[in-house]
Amino acid sequence: MIRLGVLISGRGSNFEAISNAINVGKLDAEIAVVISNRASAAGLEIARDRGIPMRVIPSQGIDREKYDGLVIEELRTHEVELVCLAGFMRLLSASFVQAFPNRVINIHPSLLPAFPGLDAQKQAVEYGVKIAGCTVHFVDEFLDSGPIILQTAVPVLDKDTLESLSARILLQEHMTYWRAIQMIAEERVSVEGRRVVISDAA
Amino acid sequence: MIRLGVLISGRGSNFEAISNAINVGKLDAEIAVVISNRASAAGLEIARDRGIPMRVIPSQGIDREKYDGLVIEELRTHEVELVCLAGFMRLLSASFVQAFPNRVINIHPSLLPAFPGLDAQKQAVEYGVKIAGCTVHFVDEFLDSGPIILQTAVPVLDKDTLESLSARILLQEHMTYWRAIQMIAEERVSVEGRRVVISDAA
Repeated sequence: MIRLGVLISGRGSNFEAISNAINVGKLDAEIAVVISNRASAAGLEIARDRGIPMRVIPSQGIDREKYDGLVIEELRTHEVELVCLAGFMRLLSASFVQAFPNRVINIHPSLLPAFPGLDAQKQAVEYGVKIAGCTVHFVDEFLDSGPIILQTAVPVLDKDTLESLSARILLQEHMTYWRAIQMIAEERVSVEGRRVVISDAA
Repeated sequence: MIRLGVLISGRGSNFEAISNAINVGKLDAEIAVVISNRASAAGLEIARDRGIPMRVIPSQGIDREKYDGLVIEELRTHEVELVCLAGFMRLLSASFVQAFPNRVINIHPSLLPAFPGLDAQKQAVEYGVKIAGCTVHFVDEFLDSGPIILQTAVPVLDKDTLESLSARILLQEHMTYWRAIQMIAEERVSVEGRRVVISDAA
């Protein structure tokens, strides 16, 4: 079973969804450790309740390279094979990415390359798109720019508020992230330049 | 019945799809005139075959404002109420847009704001997105930037070539453009800032 390291900064709802998918047997994986850069992250409560190993590594006031070194060390201690960012609000250094080549993934609440960065749902509402969505992608050292593994489209309704759209996208994030992880666990995912190719299930 | 002016530069497949939708009674509109900036545009043959008024206004070597003035004049002569760009390979001047406020629309082969400009399908393939699509939008004087009326998502398959993806998107363009025109014809479309609101059918 593939060993996951999940990095969070806040509520950790995608972490919870991954954990749920494991618990119901849809995802063949084990969460080896949850790491938060904030002691106040609500997602830590979920880890505690479920008996999942967790660790707070505060990022404030620490140089990026040094911080990333601490996180890498913790991930290696727990023999993590795939790093899943789940609302982790930090850009990773090139050395972090190189430590886990094509083994760091993220979920972003837009159909990238549209609306990278913070407040993607707000950007989408303000732009006035009719189709929003979410993207699971490999992480490189740039913002929301790595090769795309999976995307799910989400309709924007005329009556949507930022809240209602964000909730609809989040629901799809929860159904999309574990599917991408499962495909990686099944070794069906390969990267060819910028394109991610998914081979058929065995 | 709303009177359309369709502007083309090439094969005019979206013009043909609009004309087909009218002919089968799905779209309550009339194509008042087809204007091409190129005498060699294959779409002109379709207009000729179907007895649709057409006009070539060559754009080469003419200043943009002057050219747009000639097109506006032709559109007014034919009492056009809605201008539909269908593969028209020119940016319109602000004065053109102001001559038909919220009455110029375009279809673009991507989910804008992703991949504006030329070769949108190629941009999508090279970026490696898993969801592509098409967008019908109001036209302003900037490139592919006006308020979005309708979008359709199109899956990208691992085995897609540029040609197969382009064909799949084009099929959806043909099914999307006339629906946007029909909603405008039914006076259900209003623009609120950047957001386009579609009211319910009567």
